[in-house]
Amino acid sequence: MGRDEAPLKLGEGGLQALEESNNRFELVLIGRKGDIEKEISRLSGGGLNYSIVDASEVIEMDETPNTALKQKRDSSIVVGANLHKEKKVDAFVSAGNTGAFMAASTLILGRVTGVGRPAVGTPLPTVKGSCFLIDSGANSDSRPQHILEFGVMGSIYAREIMKTDNPTVALLNIGEESSKGNELAQASYPLLEKSGLNFIGNIEGRDILAGKADVVLCDGFVGNIVLKFAESILPTLRSRFRSYASGNPLKMVWAGLMGKTLKKVLKGFSYEVQGGAPLLGVNGVSIIGHGSSSVLAVKNMVFRAEEMVNHNISKLIEDSISKIESKAE
Amino acid sequence: MGRDEAPLKLGEGGLQALEESNNRFELVLIGRKGDIEKEISRLSGGGLNYSIVDASEVIEMDETPNTALKQKRDSSIVVGANLHKEKKVDAFVSAGNTGAFMAASTLILGRVTGVGRPAVGTPLPTVKGSCFLIDSGANSDSRPQHILEFGVMGSIYAREIMKTDNPTVALLNIGEESSKGNELAQASYPLLEKSGLNFIGNIEGRDILAGKADVVLCDGFVGNIVLKFAESILPTLRSRFRSYASGNPLKMVWAGLMGKTLKKVLKGFSYEVQGGAPLLGVNGVSIIGHGSSSVLAVKNMVFRAEEMVNHNISKLIEDSISKIESKAE
Repeated sequence: MGRDEAPLKLGEGGLQALEESNNRFELVLIGRKGDIEKEISRLSGGGLNYSIVDASEVIEMDETPNTALKQKRDSSIVVGANLHKEKKVDAFVSAGNTGAFMAASTLILGRVTGVGRPAVGTPLPTVKGSCFLIDSGANSDSRPQHILEFGVMGSIYAREIMKTDNPTVALLNIGEESSKGNELAQASYPLLEKSGLNFIGNIEGRDILAGKADVVLCDGFVGNIVLKFAESILPTLRSRFRSYASGNPLKMVWAGLMGKTLKKVLKGFSYEVQGGAPLLGVNGVSIIGHGSSSVLAVKNMVFRAEEMVNHNISKLIEDSISKIESKAE
Repeated sequence: MGRDEAPLKLGEGGLQALEESNNRFELVLIGRKGDIEKEISRLSGGGLNYSIVDASEVIEMDETPNTALKQKRDSSIVVGANLHKEKKVDAFVSAGNTGAFMAASTLILGRVTGVGRPAVGTPLPTVKGSCFLIDSGANSDSRPQHILEFGVMGSIYAREIMKTDNPTVALLNIGEESSKGNELAQASYPLLEKSGLNFIGNIEGRDILAGKADVVLCDGFVGNIVLKFAESILPTLRSRFRSYASGNPLKMVWAGLMGKTLKKVLKGFSYEVQGGAPLLGVNGVSIIGHGSSSVLAVKNMVFRAEEMVNHNISKLIEDSISKIESKAE
């Protein structure tokens, strides 16, 4: 709920995932039941293994998370987190208000033992494939210990879900030497060095898309700014092309042809294939999708959630964090 | 000096600026005299108003700034900053080691009265024209007062040099509301609000290229990461195109044709036309160019320096800062 095109695209994406997987899992759609039923009836949902749980309230995209959570106990976000907490569902995905979703997940599901700050990780395309940027927005003013936790959680996600053997981990910084950067980066470096992670040192902003590291660590303030900047590249290119071709029919044809090739060339730079951003470090599987998620994006997000359940990511995080803690003692 | 292609490109860019401007200013080339003379002799420097000042040492691109400055007193960077300090030159530009250049400028020229932290500003292209990102790398762990200073200095630069009337100023953040972001952003917001600057509030990472603000304020750690990420977009596109066309002659022809249009479409996204990044808040005119500056980039940097001298930017900064200080008292 909470988006203009919801619940249609969300429902459709979920049902497509069910259909493609031959009802391999059970889908629970949460939101205003009447609205969902109406939208679903347009689709061929026959024989698919889904149910609907009613949630009468809607947290809008621009609401303040904490206030919304307190006031709207019957919103799809709160109802969904509670269903997950009660183990009535194994995973919980949304494309709604990111702040409310993260807050509900953290408060209702609780943190994994040993994790100080759950973090959002976002897969980003690179010239070599993809990397995992963590924290991409859950925490500002992180401490060095949190950066270490992001490294542990990111490595597990990269290995288990992104299928990267022994993923390389780097600290996003403004220079290569260990002495570079702000106080947080300088204090995080030695913790990462002795962490047992495959830490390759600092990388700079230009190294992210170049694919220099599989897991890129940063405070959520920096990560969120980089992520949103990255998301603006394609719209910027589109806008530039429009200005270039504007009012000139020949150029418009040419720009149209180029646009098709560009789309192929930049495949993977689209957020549709990435399957959402997991909130790691909570007791459960909690994935937040882009506000303008398409049907394809939602489908991939549902499959991603299924994979995280099967790989028991939260348990792996708990085990790894406890190992690092006992090593540090 | 300090770059593989220097001193050729630097000398050539400077001489081109002289030629185009009909010897409107005097150009002083600083570096190993023999090397410069040898390279200059290849060019048609006849009748141009330039001289050479010898500096026997070279600070390499990867040297630690402070150590290099202490050890290499006869490097072009130190010699140049001293010439500027002694008012033998009115401006000082370089495409060498950024850290060493900034440190030499700050230590030797000194700070403008009232400025706590000189900052580097970088013009960035937007879909509407360009914006000015400040601080793009001089300071990590800035304090709110510094962010305010960046706002004052950035506004002056945008108005005087980038010719933007009453430039809008925004704080780079992870949400629009004043309560959003890390401690620095939250504490900077009210200072900016009552500063008398044309402050339009917070913007997010996606708003930079969209051109939502003329002056974008941030700590240098964040700014440097965003800047270097931005600089990696064109190389990433090129690399993607190469992979797309690789081994397929038809696709290679097609990619070649597209490349030419893309270059036109993305004109302005090239750093050549921007004319370098000024270090604002020092007593003088100090501009640092990109490490891989071309002849065109150097020429534009020289013209930019001339403009900054003519507009007396340091004096304007001093006056504005003192006005804001007396207002705050």
